[in-house]
Amino acid sequence: MRIDLNSDMGESYGAYQIGADAEVLRWVTSANVACGWHGGDPAVMRQTLQRAKELGVAVGAHPGYPDLLGFGRRILQISRQEARDYTVYQIGALRGFAEALGLRLQHVKAHGALYNAAVKDAELSRGIAEGVAEVGKELILVGLPESEIVKAGQAVGLRVAREAFGDRAYNEDGTLVSRKLPGSLITDPDLVAQRVLDMVGGQVLAITGKRIQIQADTICMHGDTPGAGAIARRVHERLKAAGVTLAPMATFLS
Amino acid sequence: MRIDLNSDMGESYGAYQIGADAEVLRWVTSANVACGWHGGDPAVMRQTLQRAKELGVAVGAHPGYPDLLGFGRRILQISRQEARDYTVYQIGALRGFAEALGLRLQHVKAHGALYNAAVKDAELSRGIAEGVAEVGKELILVGLPESEIVKAGQAVGLRVAREAFGDRAYNEDGTLVSRKLPGSLITDPDLVAQRVLDMVGGQVLAITGKRIQIQADTICMHGDTPGAGAIARRVHERLKAAGVTLAPMATFLS
Amino acid sequence: MRIDLNSDMGESYGAYQIGADAEVLRWVTSANVACGWHGGDPAVMRQTLQRAKELGVAVGAHPGYPDLLGFGRRILQISRQEARDYTVYQIGALRGFAEALGLRLQHVKAHGALYNAAVKDAELSRGIAEGVAEVGKELILVGLPESEIVKAGQAVGLRVAREAFGDRAYNEDGTLVSRKLPGSLITDPDLVAQRVLDMVGGQVLAITGKRIQIQADTICMHGDTPGAGAIARRVHERLKAAGVTLAPMATFLS
Amino acid sequence: MRIDLNSDMGESYGAYQIGADAEVLRWVTSANVACGWHGGDPAVMRQTLQRAKELGVAVGAHPGYPDLLGFGRRILQISRQEARDYTVYQIGALRGFAEALGLRLQHVKAHGALYNAAVKDAELSRGIAEGVAEVGKELILVGLPESEIVKAGQAVGLRVAREAFGDRAYNEDGTLVSRKLPGSLITDPDLVAQRVLDMVGGQVLAITGKRIQIQADTICMHGDTPGAGAIARRVHERLKAAGVTLAPMATFLS
Repeated sequence: MRIDLNSDMGESYGAYQIGADAEVLRWVTSANVACGWHGGDPAVMRQTLQRAKELGVAVGAHPGYPDLLGFGRRILQISRQEARDYTVYQIGALRGFAEALGLRLQHVKAHGALYNAAVKDAELSRGIAEGVAEVGKELILVGLPESEIVKAGQAVGLRVAREAFGDRAYNEDGTLVSRKLPGSLITDPDLVAQRVLDMVGGQVLAITGKRIQIQADTICMHGDTPGAGAIARRVHERLKAAGVTLAPMATFLS
Repeated sequence: MRIDLNSDMGESYGAYQIGADAEVLRWVTSANVACGWHGGDPAVMRQTLQRAKELGVAVGAHPGYPDLLGFGRRILQISRQEARDYTVYQIGALRGFAEALGLRLQHVKAHGALYNAAVKDAELSRGIAEGVAEVGKELILVGLPESEIVKAGQAVGLRVAREAFGDRAYNEDGTLVSRKLPGSLITDPDLVAQRVLDMVGGQVLAITGKRIQIQADTICMHGDTPGAGAIARRVHERLKAAGVTLAPMATFLS
Repeated sequence: MRIDLNSDMGESYGAYQIGADAEVLRWVTSANVACGWHGGDPAVMRQTLQRAKELGVAVGAHPGYPDLLGFGRRILQISRQEARDYTVYQIGALRGFAEALGLRLQHVKAHGALYNAAVKDAELSRGIAEGVAEVGKELILVGLPESEIVKAGQAVGLRVAREAFGDRAYNEDGTLVSRKLPGSLITDPDLVAQRVLDMVGGQVLAITGKRIQIQADTICMHGDTPGAGAIARRVHERLKAAGVTLAPMATFLS
Repeated sequence: MRIDLNSDMGESYGAYQIGADAEVLRWVTSANVACGWHGGDPAVMRQTLQRAKELGVAVGAHPGYPDLLGFGRRILQISRQEARDYTVYQIGALRGFAEALGLRLQHVKAHGALYNAAVKDAELSRGIAEGVAEVGKELILVGLPESEIVKAGQAVGLRVAREAFGDRAYNEDGTLVSRKLPGSLITDPDLVAQRVLDMVGGQVLAITGKRIQIQADTICMHGDTPGAGAIARRVHERLKAAGVTLAPMATFLS
């Protein structure tokens, strides 16, 4: 049994600090690094990649909408071509730093509203996937199982990684319970760790209490929730203790 | 006898058009492509590279200050490390598109106030040169002869290209006459062409009337002056007629 | 019979010029001045107000989404409170210049995608209208007849101006024919002038050929279409010749 | 004996939190509110003014360079006219919110590098002062004693407030000891309070140990240093205990 743990990183900007990067980075196997549009800046990008390198964490691009004011959490109605161009730009910028540091980018995961919009928007997803593919055929595209982005990634010949959330409640149909509903967010480290362990086994308890099937290649560890570092650590340790191999997605995805 | 003709390109932004790219691109051998900071955007970057590819024009990055409002023409007091990081970011972003289109970047030329500030600022120049070098040792760094940026490029092991301006008056010491002074700008196509021809021969007439030595690997064709297209064409044709080989700088710089 | 002619103005940005402000401003009675978010900058705002003052043209704010890259033409999903805050910010900034020049703002008209989104989005419209009302109860809110923005303006106690488009085709139900459809845009100056004259009389020919009712307090003269200056002049002259009084909306709206 | 205590406020941006506004605001009499350029956004501006209103703290504008990436801490070489326009824009935007909340702006204090550059740059200072004056003759301009900004404010007919720093060491000539030197920053709350008390009496101990004269109308309480809230409280309490009247600058400046 093996799994990848990923987390969004490098979203600080200039004088503004955000996230718990230093703590969380120690417990994950893949870091999604912001590229300066919804968050992140050139200095932060370099530092984040440098720390990931030191800890042996695989790195990927985390492109978002051009909306620093909204931290990339608001949908902007862009065209397929715009999505493609924005993706190329952001991956390219991050790859500049990666190559400067002797690193290769492993994957791409869209941020915030771009990630969410892409779940159901085939055109948008196609634009993102095309952008990823033309920058690097070796890049893995991360998305929700069954989402349009995963389909688009496969359609353009990319490897895709299916992502699950240990700290989010699921509906019976495998979709996430809206953040606006009570119980949608799980913050108890032990409970999150247990759920992740279940997910590695291909299952998770839906909010209704029913056990449902789930297929996950990588589990998202949020870095901006209270206690993010403690949760990531607990998940890491529980998985290790259970004999699960923690490894970057590129090592086992085909 | 051989020379490169370069021009700033791709500085339009969203709905905003600037420059005479389509006309000028036909007559130059190297295009300095804006990277989205002082001008340019992802769509413009892709289109500019695409047109350059079709015309066989070599492409390079044209990084600037993060100052779209000032079009990169105002000095911002950044540190050496910031200069380095900003350079990596912008080259990386452009290279994403270049690689998507099957192109390789040939060179880097700083834009506007960044170019001017680097002439005499050794720390700033070192930051830029380090950024270029860590992104790609094969990239050529373009700058004024004798400038700090040229020295910095050589210090980090980069090839450098010395640039001259056919449409600008020179002082006897080889520096450019300030744009604020009368006669600093030359707009007659024939006169510009004659001066470029002189430069290829290693000489130019200073504003005082004295003939001075000048060493140039590439001549800048401004794209934002009135009649830019006509001037570029005249220069191109006069050089050809005189038997000068027009070629991208990478083909002859060692 | 009387009507106001309005046009979007001051959307240039830094080195980037856009629109035909100088020509169009001579023929309109109200100028919608961009506030630096989707276009416009402090220097342009001042200059635009100054020219309007010299020509006796009434001025208003033209707030847009924070999307310079998209020129405010892409919908960004913002909340009612965000709409309210963005409206206050932009009107306030413009009013700073207006007061510096001894002018009073007459009206507010949302720009591009914000204008379009507000037509049917009651929450968004409410946010905009609340922002306008709290900055100045005397400001007139401009919008499409029957739109949510007009309703919201009335609900918060603002005077509203109903806007019609002389250069756009109408459906039988009084909505605008999509720009994507053939015949949606009318560019012949005489035809536009005739339609505006019809509109002053309360009618317009729908694209189907049927004559429909329309109520307009102000007619939009686009400044970014080819021949914008000539169209505005023709409309102005035809209306004058027909005895229609051209006057800023504040002079006749109650 | 009376003094004003001022602090920079409202510099958070979108998802990014910065400063200790809630704590510090309780102990000062004037708040310098960021206007969205170097920091701050429309939502933050409204909230900051609202809280200041609830606590009876006077409010002013805190304009900065258009450099969010550098938090307004890097000098950008702008012209006098640009300084004027940028000042009008930012004050206007903030005043929109102030008027919406029934508040009047009391003062203007430039931020960071703009404040520092203006100390010795007469042209820049003139631009800022002209911008303030044309937006509101009643506004007080805050600056270092003897600085160009104070002279410029007086030249255009504004009231000026001379500012001193309780947590910064002074040279014998009354200038601040560079932050790069050891001992330049004082963080012990009691020591800061004692120095502020001395300043109210017209004196302060220079870093050399010599007692020098200083004239201050307002004391800056930094909001972004560790323990900022505790320092502000101690200063407030010590001044009160010593019988010093704490009041907004507008109440006693003529």
